[in-house]
Amino acid sequence: MTTPSTKVSRLSEKQTTARERLDELLDSTPLATVALVRDGHPVIFPTGFARVGDELVIHGSTGSPWMRALADGAQAAVSVTGLDGIVVARSGFESSFRYRSAVVFGVFERVPEAQKVYYLNRLTDAFIPGRTAELRASTRKELAATLPLRLGIREDNWSLKISGGWPDDPEDDIAGDAWAGVVPMSITYGPPLRAPDLRPGIPVPESVRALTGGPPSAR
Amino acid sequence: MTTPSTKVSRLSEKQTTARERLDELLDSTPLATVALVRDGHPVIFPTGFARVGDELVIHGSTGSPWMRALADGAQAAVSVTGLDGIVVARSGFESSFRYRSAVVFGVFERVPEAQKVYYLNRLTDAFIPGRTAELRASTRKELAATLPLRLGIREDNWSLKISGGWPDDPEDDIAGDAWAGVVPMSITYGPPLRAPDLRPGIPVPESVRALTGGPPSAR
Repeated sequence: MTTPSTKVSRLSEKQTTARERLDELLDSTPLATVALVRDGHPVIFPTGFARVGDELVIHGSTGSPWMRALADGAQAAVSVTGLDGIVVARSGFESSFRYRSAVVFGVFERVPEAQKVYYLNRLTDAFIPGRTAELRASTRKELAATLPLRLGIREDNWSLKISGGWPDDPEDDIAGDAWAGVVPMSITYGPPLRAPDLRPGIPVPESVRALTGGPPSAR
Repeated sequence: MTTPSTKVSRLSEKQTTARERLDELLDSTPLATVALVRDGHPVIFPTGFARVGDELVIHGSTGSPWMRALADGAQAAVSVTGLDGIVVARSGFESSFRYRSAVVFGVFERVPEAQKVYYLNRLTDAFIPGRTAELRASTRKELAATLPLRLGIREDNWSLKISGGWPDDPEDDIAGDAWAGVVPMSITYGPPLRAPDLRPGIPVPESVRALTGGPPSAR
C-alpha cells in the first residue's frame, strides 16, 4: 500500500467505517474535488462524479492535462463533502458545521474502451436520473474526445467523518442566555429554465421534472 | 514564484481575471477544500473559511496535523466551488454544470497573536453574520487551542473559472426533439432547530433569523 493512512487523526469519534454511509454521501452530491501532485506542488480541481458500484467515476476532455496525469497513474485524493447545517453554539469556539466528509485515495484508471458508453451514461444519469434514455446515443467523435476514469473503492482506501450533532457547550454556557441550535443547509433545485434556442412545443422531460420535484407529465 | 501556473489550461474562455468575481464566490460559500503534499502524496480536506480583505482565512485545532503542516509552510492549493445549476443539453456530451470555481495557491501563515480574536470573530461572522456580537468573548483557553491561518490573495496566485451559460448544442441537435435548458441549484437554509439542551424562553437570535430569512424579532 502506498496510499496515506486513512486513520482520521482529529475528532476520531466522528469517523465511521460503514460503507453504506459512504455510499449515501457519494450518491447525494455530484461534486468531487480532486487533488494530485505535479512537480512537487499540490494541484486541485472540482469535477462532477458518480459512484458506480465500487468505483468512483469522473470524466473530462482527453485534452485536459490533469485528467491525463490521473490517467497516467498520478496518486489522487478525492474529497466529497456534504454540508448539512450550521451548528450554532453558545460560543464561537463550539460553533461548527454539520457535515459529511469523505476522502478516497488511490490511482484512477481509464475505463475499458468497450465500457466507455456504459460509464458515460452512468455519469449522465447520476447528474440527471433517467436522462440517458431521453437522449440520442453518443457519437464516435464525442466518445473519442471524452476521457472517463475510475477509482476503485476498496476496504482500505477511504475515510469518512460525519458530524451530525448539536452544540456541545460547557455547563456555564448552557446556563447562560445565548441561543443554541442548528440551521439546516441543503442543496435545492429550482424550476427548470428553457434554453434560449429551444424550439417551441418541446415539454420539460420526465428526468428534469423528477429532479425538480414537479409532477410527471401526462404525455 | 514557486506556485504553479494559474493559467487555465482547458476551456480558457471561461477564465476570468476579475477580482470582484473572485470575491463574490469566496463570500458566497463557507466551504473550501484544501490540498497539500505529505511524503509525496496528495492530502485533501474540507474546511470552513472566510475571506478577510485580501486574505483567505481558515482555522482548526492546534492538534491537527494538516493545520500544523500548513502553519509550517507546506504549499497549499485551495479550491472553492459554487455549483449553480445543471446544464441540460440535447446530448450527454454537451450536458454540464453551471459553476464558479476558484483555486488559490500559496503558503498559509499563522495570524499574529494580537489579531487572533479579530480573525476568529471574522470567521464566526462569515458563517453566521452578526453572531459575534451576540456571544461572550473567547476564553484564553479556547484561543490557545485554536490555530487560525491566513493565505494572501495576491494578483498572481489565483484562478477563477465561471461557467454560467446555456447548452451549446450543434444545429442537428437543436433541430431535434430533445429538451434543453438549465436546472438552477442553490444552497438553502432551513428553519432553525433548537438544541435539545436549550433553556426555555431563549428566542432565536437576530443573526440566525437574518440567515434563515425570518423577520427580525421585536425585542
